[in-house]
Amino acid sequence: MSSELSAFFNPRGVAVIGASDDPKKLGYEVFKNLREYKGGEVYPVNPRREYVQGVKAFKSVLEVPDPVDMAVIVVPKKFVKQALVECGERRVKAVVIITAGFSETGPEGARDEEELVGIARKYGMRIVGPNCVGVMNTRANLNATFIMPAKKGSVAFISQSGALGGAIIYKTIKERVGFSKFVSVGNMADVDFADLMEYLANDPETTAIALYVEGLKNGKRFMEAARRVAKVKPVVALKGGRSEAGSKAVASHTGSLAGNFRVYEAAFKQAGILVADTIDEMISMARAFTQPLPKGNRVAILTNAGGAGVLLTDQLEARGLRLAKLSEETKKHLRSFLPPIASVRNPVDTTAGARGNDYYECVKTLLSDNNVDLLIVACVVPTFAGITPTEHAEGALKAIKELREAGIEKPVIAMFMAGYVSEESGKLLEENGIPTYERPEDAAAAASALSVFARIRSVQ
Amino acid sequence: MSSELSAFFNPRGVAVIGASDDPKKLGYEVFKNLREYKGGEVYPVNPRREYVQGVKAFKSVLEVPDPVDMAVIVVPKKFVKQALVECGERRVKAVVIITAGFSETGPEGARDEEELVGIARKYGMRIVGPNCVGVMNTRANLNATFIMPAKKGSVAFISQSGALGGAIIYKTIKERVGFSKFVSVGNMADVDFADLMEYLANDPETTAIALYVEGLKNGKRFMEAARRVAKVKPVVALKGGRSEAGSKAVASHTGSLAGNFRVYEAAFKQAGILVADTIDEMISMARAFTQPLPKGNRVAILTNAGGAGVLLTDQLEARGLRLAKLSEETKKHLRSFLPPIASVRNPVDTTAGARGNDYYECVKTLLSDNNVDLLIVACVVPTFAGITPTEHAEGALKAIKELREAGIEKPVIAMFMAGYVSEESGKLLEENGIPTYERPEDAAAAASALSVFARIRSVQ
Repeated sequence: MSSELSAFFNPRGVAVIGASDDPKKLGYEVFKNLREYKGGEVYPVNPRREYVQGVKAFKSVLEVPDPVDMAVIVVPKKFVKQALVECGERRVKAVVIITAGFSETGPEGARDEEELVGIARKYGMRIVGPNCVGVMNTRANLNATFIMPAKKGSVAFISQSGALGGAIIYKTIKERVGFSKFVSVGNMADVDFADLMEYLANDPETTAIALYVEGLKNGKRFMEAARRVAKVKPVVALKGGRSEAGSKAVASHTGSLAGNFRVYEAAFKQAGILVADTIDEMISMARAFTQPLPKGNRVAILTNAGGAGVLLTDQLEARGLRLAKLSEETKKHLRSFLPPIASVRNPVDTTAGARGNDYYECVKTLLSDNNVDLLIVACVVPTFAGITPTEHAEGALKAIKELREAGIEKPVIAMFMAGYVSEESGKLLEENGIPTYERPEDAAAAASALSVFARIRSVQ
Repeated sequence: MSSELSAFFNPRGVAVIGASDDPKKLGYEVFKNLREYKGGEVYPVNPRREYVQGVKAFKSVLEVPDPVDMAVIVVPKKFVKQALVECGERRVKAVVIITAGFSETGPEGARDEEELVGIARKYGMRIVGPNCVGVMNTRANLNATFIMPAKKGSVAFISQSGALGGAIIYKTIKERVGFSKFVSVGNMADVDFADLMEYLANDPETTAIALYVEGLKNGKRFMEAARRVAKVKPVVALKGGRSEAGSKAVASHTGSLAGNFRVYEAAFKQAGILVADTIDEMISMARAFTQPLPKGNRVAILTNAGGAGVLLTDQLEARGLRLAKLSEETKKHLRSFLPPIASVRNPVDTTAGARGNDYYECVKTLLSDNNVDLLIVACVVPTFAGITPTEHAEGALKAIKELREAGIEKPVIAMFMAGYVSEESGKLLEENGIPTYERPEDAAAAASALSVFARIRSVQ
């Protein structure tokens, strides 16, 4: 049952076994990070300290007072088994084992790992890891990892590579992209992609699930779960080890069989998983799902720079989307207020002089056109002094709001490209729920993800 | 003769015709930007002002004292012709016409544009534009545009879309990527891609040329120039209007014929141009050429995180590069100091505990291996508290320096992925001449560009 995983994300009480005062140890960071959690008490367990980071420490998890749903184990390998047995005796439900040195190191480590699984089964506990970075639930300020917390968002991200997962979290912090939950699954001794997909399918804080997959131990179970989940919630996967050499690299990394990528890709697609080619594409696709689903694949582009419209069009067509043929009424109306050098065919190019109000009128007109299923609002830095892209964002947001209030629910994606100059406008759009990108390929990937998932949904 | 273009980049004296005190006008920004130029005097021309931005103004360029090699025209369209004639009389060599409203608007505008070309020919002047953002030479602090100056770098960037070019400049400022020169060619009434490629081929400050191309007026001339230039200096092109719809969008944007992309692509490749698929790929490829060229396509990867090595391998293989088979000696030496769980096969994965000195030893060992033509040094944020990626960068740089001093000249590319956490290390690497990327696909594109250009070079 997947609901038993909730102890990993909303535990009443957390014990950190191996909590430390030494900033060079992972147990220092994990305990420090968890102290931000407000959903329950967080207890340091360390037999050799009376206090850890100023908090009264316990010699064993057995001594920790009620309730304690989750334990994070971050002690040296030789102490992990005993710590896990004590968690079982203590009726802990969820255990994150960060400690490495198990199945990823060879047959001996694999045997040790099986022993851990046996202990967990005996006590009815679930394990995330071992050999992982940990678990986050950003909405609850739960950061049971030794890395910085991700920003809050609506995408759940599950990574089979801990360090890469961490790098992606750090990258997204800089890019102001957020996640609802993050799980570094490590060796997947127990909790795996399938469990997490099933759990996240019912998580109201998660609108889409992003997976970094290297190899699967139980492909059948994965596909069964994916088929169920991908119908109700978008699942986007990036597969590492696509090439032959990459596949060998996977073998020496996680010890799992990467398998033939074409086989994976076909199986993923058949299960309704959206396949991404790069980290950015995976995240771009997953975070599009704050939008309503499009009724078809006819895209309108609004831009204030021809080149941006051209590159977007190329990227959309490469992904099988097509430009909407605007109605005569739309074109006539656009012509009535745009300058003569503007293009009122799709992509609608206002040229650089457009102001916020022009964007308001254009967005309203394009979203009202029955030939348009999805709108991409592009803006490069306006080239006339005194205009900032913020007014374009405001104009677009006003129109989107009015139309949604009038019952016209069409997806809108923004592409604002200009480095620092478009940061404020990008932030404004994101805060108002519009997924905003800086690169044509990312915006097109987002549009494509919405369109493909709408099709998957419609055939149910 | 292309050397006559030098007046655009190192003019002795510049007149800004249409310089303004009104911050809402382009002539305000252009004059303000040009005042940073140290290579000669910069004169405001404005018949209705005695002073512009506190500088004594001239009623006409005819009154401006010697020398004045370049003029920037930023007056309303109806005054452009007269201004250009006066430039001719004044023996100005290079004129940037920012003003729009010419061939991009239709047949009438095209006739007006031809008239300008006639005037330029008569006086032996060269024109960049009209309908453009202008020209930059970052090394000389020359910014004859109305946008922010690009960072200094070694790539010359020529853009057929002004606004997109501007957005790319702004994007690269944020990403700490620099350019040697930037030219927004606008309508290419006179100076075009061919002229600029020929000029830049001989520019010692430019190691590679990046082009954003929508359509060509004179394809034959372009290809002839490309064939000559691409042998001696890498030329990377991003073609806008690849798709059918994109090609139509080009027609309404610059009025040029985008043509069939496959035809373009084949012609580009035949001429030795490196073809990029996205803006990031174009820039990533072009800025790799601070490195010596590889002798072959065998790549070694060093990483401290398996996932990063896996994704890099996938991207390299997709581009036709292959992983070097490391010598037994290399593997034995790596095994002697790396931990048992490290992988000493390519990709070499030190695992997360590696320190700066491990990177030093690994880089030295890998670059010394005769089976390695090119090295990618990858680093994700080290996951042990107290280690920062800066020590990995320092270790790598020390090894590269020692080997280059010992006469081993192999290209090195860095991929440091971790948002803010890897900013300092990335800056350090870049300052020391190592092209540094954050995404596997960008690092792989850079490696591929070096390898392809080395092959083009070798068949000469």
